Amino acid sequence: MAPRILICRQIVWAHDDVKRLLGDIAEVIYDDSPDRASFLAAFGPGGKYENTVGIYRENESARRIGVFDKALIDGLPSSVRWIAHNGAGYDPVDVHACKARGIYLSNTPGAVDDATATTALYLLLSTMRQFAHGERSVRELKWKPAGVSARTQDLTGKTLAILGLGGIGGRLAELVHAFPMRVIYHSRSRNPDAPAFCEYFADVDAMLGQTDVLSVHVPLRAETVGLVGEKMIRALKPGAIIVNTARGKVIDEAALIRALEDGHIAAAGLDVFPNEPEVNPRFFDFPQVTLLPHMGTESRDTQRKMEVRALTNLRDFLTTGMGKDLVLEFKSDPVKVRQKL
Amino acid sequence: MAPRILICRQIVWAHDDVKRLLGDIAEVIYDDSPDRASFLAAFGPGGKYENTVGIYRENESARRIGVFDKALIDGLPSSVRWIAHNGAGYDPVDVHACKARGIYLSNTPGAVDDATATTALYLLLSTMRQFAHGERSVRELKWKPAGVSARTQDLTGKTLAILGLGGIGGRLAELVHAFPMRVIYHSRSRNPDAPAFCEYFADVDAMLGQTDVLSVHVPLRAETVGLVGEKMIRALKPGAIIVNTARGKVIDEAALIRALEDGHIAAAGLDVFPNEPEVNPRFFDFPQVTLLPHMGTESRDTQRKMEVRALTNLRDFLTTGMGKDLVLEFKSDPVKVRQKL
Repeated sequence: MAPRILICRQIVWAHDDVKRLLGDIAEVIYDDSPDRASFLAAFGPGGKYENTVGIYRENESARRIGVFDKALIDGLPSSVRWIAHNGAGYDPVDVHACKARGIYLSNTPGAVDDATATTALYLLLSTMRQFAHGERSVRELKWKPAGVSARTQDLTGKTLAILGLGGIGGRLAELVHAFPMRVIYHSRSRNPDAPAFCEYFADVDAMLGQTDVLSVHVPLRAETVGLVGEKMIRALKPGAIIVNTARGKVIDEAALIRALEDGHIAAAGLDVFPNEPEVNPRFFDFPQVTLLPHMGTESRDTQRKMEVRALTNLRDFLTTGMGKDLVLEFKSDPVKVRQKL
Repeated sequence: MAPRILICRQIVWAHDDVKRLLGDIAEVIYDDSPDRASFLAAFGPGGKYENTVGIYRENESARRIGVFDKALIDGLPSSVRWIAHNGAGYDPVDVHACKARGIYLSNTPGAVDDATATTALYLLLSTMRQFAHGERSVRELKWKPAGVSARTQDLTGKTLAILGLGGIGGRLAELVHAFPMRVIYHSRSRNPDAPAFCEYFADVDAMLGQTDVLSVHVPLRAETVGLVGEKMIRALKPGAIIVNTARGKVIDEAALIRALEDGHIAAAGLDVFPNEPEVNPRFFDFPQVTLLPHMGTESRDTQRKMEVRALTNLRDFLTTGMGKDLVLEFKSDPVKVRQKL
């Protein structure tokens, strides 16, 4: 009997790829549970999802069954051995609960880099040149916003600081190098894969003091909640701009709002918020702020690429016992690798 | 007596540069005429502007004295020998009237390239990824626009066609090469200064048939009015996008609106309009269209650069008899060069 793969809960762009990647080696079923209780019940004996080996997960599933927290992971049967999350940030899945249960977790790292870095570039352009503000002004029949010139500047020759230079930050560095902007970065350690023109700062405050625009690219973990807080924000050059395409909770929102109010921060470009889809209405008071509804990977090209990459992790697990996008927590502190199926 | 230079009518960012460039060699006066009649009268005997040799002109002056049309040029005294226009597009100055009067005209070509190409890049990003639409949706408390995914695409790997590859188009080619996009272009002739990766098409229709996004960069002249009309638009690949940061009248607006209505054109990004600051309200019906209030060079860095460049043309004329940005019409069909002052 072919192993069962559960798609939880939809494939939008890669329907043909499901057949190509899994058609010959798995029985593919699609989740249609109305809620978490019926989702978990279906894994029981005789249930629709009995004997499921791998789960494909995308964020839309949270609307019906919630995020993959400890309670959900603990409710899965021992047949489940791989969760392929569609997304770079896997904070909606409790990786420690996965490890405790011996369930592997993969994400889709490289697939999101181009689209997310492009979103950060958009937010840089929109805040430095005040384009989104101009757009709203035209549609309000006001033509140019009054006094907008004084708030506008070129990217060329300015300094971009990248907080967390991984795949997305590295891709953004490449894109702004075309202007060029000067690119400086801080990570826990120097990234050997960083483009040669990127300057590493071990001292984050020293970096911030030279920053015209700070772009945030750290994953959400316990230790990154509120990382960009009062201290970091005040260490930035007066008049600096902050761009965030990572996770809302990485920035201390109250500290950012205070800095926008007193002008220490000239503008902000935000694609992510602490309690999405809620947006703190205080941000609407700042015309110079650009706000996006988490569109970092909103692109049919990239979404198909992400779906294919998540499905490929399941295929690789089924055929070789290991998918190539196993998340960091498994690599740095490996659990016992189970035998190939 | 130092020759008189008239600033018509303001310097916003380059006050210090006025002194540096002209302080030692000219008497600088600032136009404060309430209307055209008093402007022209002031050039008369005993008038404030009598014996003016060079005029610095920026677009804001049109609000009081109108554009520099034939009537205005013909009303200037023979003492005026150089008009330094602040801007790349010099369609607000009647170049033929200038030539007939033996008045040189300069513009500020290279100074605008970076900021205008950056604006075109913004419009590419905003239309291909539907970011401005997302921004408005957040501010309307709707989070993501319904069905937006299907309208979104990556820039990477797509084909950008540049209509008129001069300084601005060439700069845009460099910026999108970072993704990379494929760049193709059509001009009256191959541009020897085009980056090597740009592919020249002598046949505009052949180019349009391969185009995902068309970016317009031709100057407004009699022969470019309505250049991007029904024929060119229909020669584009279905679902293509049009971006315009050149001049509104280069596009046949009615043809563009028809193509947006029937979906042949998926989206448009417009920084310029035929009758600015009026915007055809039909565009407001298309949420996928990004509209900017002519912000191509709206950047304090670039505006200072442009002011300095226009002032430098006046300085060079006063010191050498020739400014380096003499417009094309004088170069291709030179008038007799007068002696150095």
